[in-house]
Amino acid sequence: MRLYLLPKEFSGESLLHLEGKEAHYLTKVLRMQVGSRFAGRDHKGVLWDLEITHKDKNTCSIRCAQAGQQVQEASDALPAYNGPFPNLSLYQCLCKGKKMEQIVRQATELGVARIIPVQSAHSVVDLSKKEVEELTEKKDRLQAMVKEAIQQSGSAVPTVVERMLRMTEVIEDWQGHGLGLFFHQLPLENQQSLADTVSSYAKEKGPQAPIAVLIGPEGGLSTEEVQFLIHGGFKPIHLKTNILRAETAAIYALSAIQVVMLA
Amino acid sequence: MRLYLLPKEFSGESLLHLEGKEAHYLTKVLRMQVGSRFAGRDHKGVLWDLEITHKDKNTCSIRCAQAGQQVQEASDALPAYNGPFPNLSLYQCLCKGKKMEQIVRQATELGVARIIPVQSAHSVVDLSKKEVEELTEKKDRLQAMVKEAIQQSGSAVPTVVERMLRMTEVIEDWQGHGLGLFFHQLPLENQQSLADTVSSYAKEKGPQAPIAVLIGPEGGLSTEEVQFLIHGGFKPIHLKTNILRAETAAIYALSAIQVVMLA
Repeated sequence: MRLYLLPKEFSGESLLHLEGKEAHYLTKVLRMQVGSRFAGRDHKGVLWDLEITHKDKNTCSIRCAQAGQQVQEASDALPAYNGPFPNLSLYQCLCKGKKMEQIVRQATELGVARIIPVQSAHSVVDLSKKEVEELTEKKDRLQAMVKEAIQQSGSAVPTVVERMLRMTEVIEDWQGHGLGLFFHQLPLENQQSLADTVSSYAKEKGPQAPIAVLIGPEGGLSTEEVQFLIHGGFKPIHLKTNILRAETAAIYALSAIQVVMLA
Repeated sequence: MRLYLLPKEFSGESLLHLEGKEAHYLTKVLRMQVGSRFAGRDHKGVLWDLEITHKDKNTCSIRCAQAGQQVQEASDALPAYNGPFPNLSLYQCLCKGKKMEQIVRQATELGVARIIPVQSAHSVVDLSKKEVEELTEKKDRLQAMVKEAIQQSGSAVPTVVERMLRMTEVIEDWQGHGLGLFFHQLPLENQQSLADTVSSYAKEKGPQAPIAVLIGPEGGLSTEEVQFLIHGGFKPIHLKTNILRAETAAIYALSAIQVVMLA
């Protein structure tokens, strides 16, 4: 664990008592002992220095001291990089369960701010009533994965999985908030390279300017969807690589954007 | 399937008879019919236009015509990008089975030329006699995954998984063949950013100059290993991101290098 996410109930008390799942995670899964010190963050984003002061079979107590800008030396160090992160929104067309989970976990590790599942024409998952219910459940599972990935990677970005959108809602959701990109495997007119597009944007707007990336489903985007996105101001990007599976394409695009934005 | 890898026995005959696994793959897994046309590559790298002319329960026949530089329009198109690929060697410290498989599959999709498993101080897998045997088996499994990933992604790079090395053999294996990079989560002296290092190298040597990337195991590299790599001419790279899991770090680094080399 690189950064412990304090429970939502925490409101700044100097001694926090935990029981049930939360206590189990710290004392059993992570094997924290009385005296173990570690860094935490509350739901407002404030950093805390934490220390286990007591534990028994089902509960534990933690002394909480508000940390400065930098969390003090903890038993498990925070990452070396504390600089700015690009403000990334990932519009991810639905793909099969395990792939979606892998994308959410890895995108969270990389510090993506928002992940928005998108229902597109060629998505494997269809929007019947039963499937909407399944997706709601899945979203809870995805949120749990996000929490774990934030803790493991020490990410300073509080990644959020948002409610699923239909493709026709993407433009309205983004509202031209910043650079919007999508990837298509067939060559289109006016397609630019990822490096050129992102590096001119970073030069103009700085490393933290918002970027939206839309990644198509397994079956690719339909012609109508491509037209819709272009009309809505999203730029088609030609990737100089092989045809990638959806889960590889997402991480490829996010990694490349992060490296170019922070170059 | 984007590109069918012809069996090693194929030596340019105009009609190829397949049986067993190979016939099963084409007629059952891919459901090819008599008349289906697709692109293939033989083990020398030559491209072929292929067409199923006959099939029965356990065998099939394929008409083979050598393709020009460009494979002709096939029923399942080749990727739009046919340009140069950076010549990448991935020295991947061993990690747990599924993670290693995911890295090999995704690195192959991205067109990495060589994948070399490396035994390092903090690798989970140790080199007992039994484990060496397991690793040999695993290598066969990895080679099968590579073949599938090449076919699915239409990669023009014939990715090879090489024999496992100890960390102490890495420098000798690479022989200063080109830029060597490794990633470390603690800050080191003279650490450069990925974008700067790779883009100056590409400007000087061109987009196809060889690059080696060493990715540490789950537990990170030991201090001795870091010193050894630096002494051997590998450059330590500081990633401006969170602490990444090994499988995310590999794809992050490969994607970023590919985008910057081809910018």
